Amino acid sequence: MKVNGIEYQTVWMEGGLVKMIDQNLLPFQFQIHECHNYLESCHAISSMIIRGAGAIGAAAGFAMAQAFIESDHAEDKLKFIKEARSAIEATRPTARNLFYAVEKVFDAGRISVEMAINEAFSIAKKDAADTRLIGKHGSELIEDKANILTHCNAGWLAFVDFGTALSPIYAARDQNKSVFVYVDETRPRGQGARLTAWELNNENIPHIIIPDNAAASLMASGKIDLVIAGADRIARNGDVANKIGTLDRAIIAHHFGIPFYIAAPLSTFDEHCRTGKDIVIEYRSPDEVLFQDGIDENGISRRIRIASPNSSALNPAFDITPAELITGIITEKGIVKASAESISTLLTKNER
Amino acid sequence: MKVNGIEYQTVWMEGGLVKMIDQNLLPFQFQIHECHNYLESCHAISSMIIRGAGAIGAAAGFAMAQAFIESDHAEDKLKFIKEARSAIEATRPTARNLFYAVEKVFDAGRISVEMAINEAFSIAKKDAADTRLIGKHGSELIEDKANILTHCNAGWLAFVDFGTALSPIYAARDQNKSVFVYVDETRPRGQGARLTAWELNNENIPHIIIPDNAAASLMASGKIDLVIAGADRIARNGDVANKIGTLDRAIIAHHFGIPFYIAAPLSTFDEHCRTGKDIVIEYRSPDEVLFQDGIDENGISRRIRIASPNSSALNPAFDITPAELITGIITEKGIVKASAESISTLLTKNER
Repeated sequence: MKVNGIEYQTVWMEGGLVKMIDQNLLPFQFQIHECHNYLESCHAISSMIIRGAGAIGAAAGFAMAQAFIESDHAEDKLKFIKEARSAIEATRPTARNLFYAVEKVFDAGRISVEMAINEAFSIAKKDAADTRLIGKHGSELIEDKANILTHCNAGWLAFVDFGTALSPIYAARDQNKSVFVYVDETRPRGQGARLTAWELNNENIPHIIIPDNAAASLMASGKIDLVIAGADRIARNGDVANKIGTLDRAIIAHHFGIPFYIAAPLSTFDEHCRTGKDIVIEYRSPDEVLFQDGIDENGISRRIRIASPNSSALNPAFDITPAELITGIITEKGIVKASAESISTLLTKNER
Repeated sequence: MKVNGIEYQTVWMEGGLVKMIDQNLLPFQFQIHECHNYLESCHAISSMIIRGAGAIGAAAGFAMAQAFIESDHAEDKLKFIKEARSAIEATRPTARNLFYAVEKVFDAGRISVEMAINEAFSIAKKDAADTRLIGKHGSELIEDKANILTHCNAGWLAFVDFGTALSPIYAARDQNKSVFVYVDETRPRGQGARLTAWELNNENIPHIIIPDNAAASLMASGKIDLVIAGADRIARNGDVANKIGTLDRAIIAHHFGIPFYIAAPLSTFDEHCRTGKDIVIEYRSPDEVLFQDGIDENGISRRIRIASPNSSALNPAFDITPAELITGIITEKGIVKASAESISTLLTKNER
């Protein structure tokens, strides 16, 4: 997508460098972050300089390729590569795309370093192409003048380009449909208020930020036609791991009979997970709940404490939405039912 | 309740001064705010120096009494008093207790200024006594080792003393039951993270703050036995207006079959509202969502922007939870069903 008239993707590789849009600085600063080696790329993933299922996957693929390049100087190359793989996989446990990309680049690298690099590029390229197709298929669900609720950021910043939950909205806009987006602020890290709002602004799409607490009230008053969220991992039975609060929205949408869709590429499906119970949920630091980052009136970045000084917090980063609450899953191959049967057919037909 | 060993109520009157715990400074500073006249008291209510259904009611009663005292110097006393009443009623539209208290003090003041002052004191005293009884009745719902979820702050800070949603927890603790409280942080103003957490700390009750988004995830994993929230206004049919996000919790608790109770004194019931549709919902400034107050590492109060610079926000302060999602309402007269019939019987038996 374009920023200030220049075409960007969220993450790419130049020489041995992995470059990415620094998503911890957004929405207040647009800046490119450079990772000189795979360890710096690991740090960029774990500290959420880059975040979002697909973007994490692409960054992890590039990090794995970096490790192959660096392994030239290692005494025991295989040991170096295996350690690198473990380090990359340890950055974020929940997003399926990360493990998918690391495995693909690892396997390609067994042939040659060049093959590893090619595979990393091809994962990023496929991510962009797939999410564009998700937009095409998903846009069929969006009628003119639709009011859409989205949670967290599953826009182009969360992938290499286009995004998943927001891609159908971009496609609908390109089809001259008028759309309005209610943006869950998505505490504790505020990816909705910071990133989705920034993206929609950047694309001139009318939207408004809401406190996460206002979702039910809006749905009760008939203001939401459709909910679209992303996914970090999808089990074989259609259970979905996504940003904490997704389950809340799914239950509430179900209560009011509002369609609730998940948008995700096939790389998000995990055949090793029978149900959502098999998905590891990442718990992050309580500080993300107890403190808040932002800028003061002079534009200076500040971190402030927002909670009672002697209390702590629980900070699960994801939750599991059971398949039966999901109206459908928008993939690059079309919209499928969130059921074991549909997913099995989808994955068999489309070997990844 | 005691703070640093000294017994406090949230709001009281001394001479012509209305004094209150400054809840905008909590949890970082404990300070008493003084209002020298009814207009200063109005400002304290609208700027949420004092907040919470019962505390607003008591403060409004004292403000009305202040107006009667000040009216001694007015040329047209009745005009002065009527203008004061309108100003006090305009501070916060949703809390029933405010209108209840203003009406009672207004009527008493028609006899004498002294009667107005007495009535204001008696409202505050009754609030404390009633919420203590709410604790007694509500504690019967709490088993030993219970895990309780609460939303916003309906503790003693929200009333004159004891509180509603937290009063049963304090009573259960006094009965030597072990309780654990999950505290919704309650965006956008963070009354859970700031005030409920502060109260529970002050009373040494084990608790943890959670992002509002984590409620469904916790309920899904069986970690919540019971939800208790407060109320700002209750319609004749049992529909409840309370802090934004209450409806979300009620729907999710219903989905998982978890008991969902509302705790409120009879002064919260509004016979003029047939259903929740008759309740006016206050919309507050978008800035409460877009900006965040807190303290930096040096303890200095700061306001930071936390949302994308060119986006705005929607900020409804309350939502309506329909009666059918409420397991019961804990009042000073016992626990009643949230239904027109039960409420009618309750109000007829207990003339207010």
